[in-house]
Amino acid sequence: MTKQDVFSFFGSLGYEPKNVDLYRQAITHRSYLNEHRSYNLDHNERLEFLGDAVLELIVTRYLFENYSNPEGEMTAWRAALVCGEMLSMVARELDIESQLLMSKGESKDVGRARQYILANTVEAIIGAIYLDKGYDEAKRFVETFIISHLREVLEKKLYLDAKSYFQEKAQEKVSITPTYKEHSSNGPDHDRIFVVGVYLGEELVSEGSGSSKQEAQRNAARLALEKKGWL
Amino acid sequence: MTKQDVFSFFGSLGYEPKNVDLYRQAITHRSYLNEHRSYNLDHNERLEFLGDAVLELIVTRYLFENYSNPEGEMTAWRAALVCGEMLSMVARELDIESQLLMSKGESKDVGRARQYILANTVEAIIGAIYLDKGYDEAKRFVETFIISHLREVLEKKLYLDAKSYFQEKAQEKVSITPTYKEHSSNGPDHDRIFVVGVYLGEELVSEGSGSSKQEAQRNAARLALEKKGWL
Repeated sequence: MTKQDVFSFFGSLGYEPKNVDLYRQAITHRSYLNEHRSYNLDHNERLEFLGDAVLELIVTRYLFENYSNPEGEMTAWRAALVCGEMLSMVARELDIESQLLMSKGESKDVGRARQYILANTVEAIIGAIYLDKGYDEAKRFVETFIISHLREVLEKKLYLDAKSYFQEKAQEKVSITPTYKEHSSNGPDHDRIFVVGVYLGEELVSEGSGSSKQEAQRNAARLALEKKGWL
Repeated sequence: MTKQDVFSFFGSLGYEPKNVDLYRQAITHRSYLNEHRSYNLDHNERLEFLGDAVLELIVTRYLFENYSNPEGEMTAWRAALVCGEMLSMVARELDIESQLLMSKGESKDVGRARQYILANTVEAIIGAIYLDKGYDEAKRFVETFIISHLREVLEKKLYLDAKSYFQEKAQEKVSITPTYKEHSSNGPDHDRIFVVGVYLGEELVSEGSGSSKQEAQRNAARLALEKKGWL
């Protein structure tokens, strides 16, 4: 990844760097430094620390200005917008994965660990834009790529705990408590994919997958809610 | 609390309101609305939601700019600066307690619940200043009244979990695991004050008080660390 590559990548997203090193640092995972002792920059964790707080304020202010809902609801919406799953999805949409600087070992792990790194990198990039171009440009980035998912969060009620919500609905509508069954798990230990089915009695309502059983169950419950029209 | 009172109070702190209603709202606890149906403002929870994020960014940026420590350490320092205990202490320093608008019932409860209300009110006030006068004035408030405690946080290592740290040090220095004993508890249920002693074997090292046993133990451990010179 040359400076020119980094410059072009962020330029193509609409955020042409002034200080390209900030953006290089933002895409540098700590593992990269072990294999590149002469690298002239630090890893991205301090930028992530800053970017996380910038992201939080931008989303908070957006919700505060555009909705009159109680604090508790908006806190749940915000959590759904800035959670690891959402940020790693955003990273994939922007193809940030192709830009990551990390060790050879780390780059083999494409499961849960990668998801975590991607989410953190998005926060670091927000920190870099904030330092390089100021609050308003960071705001534009967050609104364009993250707050743009708010509609989906609200429509699909992604801010709800899908498992509890499906259980509540199932009891209300059919007086059955849902059960979960592991259907399969594949891949090496550090990169396993679980597939879980959610049942109402004998009926398999839907399947969900994820890099942990919990995540697979959540995804199964979410699909079940959609399938049943209970959202 | 007339508008003029609120105006004077914040003026005397150095933050003369443009829109005084924002500050009135910031000092209005939800319980106040039950007893004052015709009150023309909402309670302070939405301002608190906003102010919390403003506070977080201001502190984060301050630490980022002034320290080169790793993210993990700065996260702990930040948590100590923006925690409920610190913010309620700041509220007492500024005599925000005298300004609170709350129900008669709520105003009798001066224990843990009050501490919580005070901390939230500080966040709401930061939200009000941010909306009324902008980021830089909110920053001035946070630096003057909150970040001013950073030195104390670092010197007294307030960012450490005092109980774990005292245990670690006690094992290292005298090979004893500290024990805690409740010495007294006074006051009505919702407003009890606990006094707890921390012991090394038979030796009573110090006493701490608090509105929960946990808090009293933490305070006892903190004093014990100071007394032993183990910080």
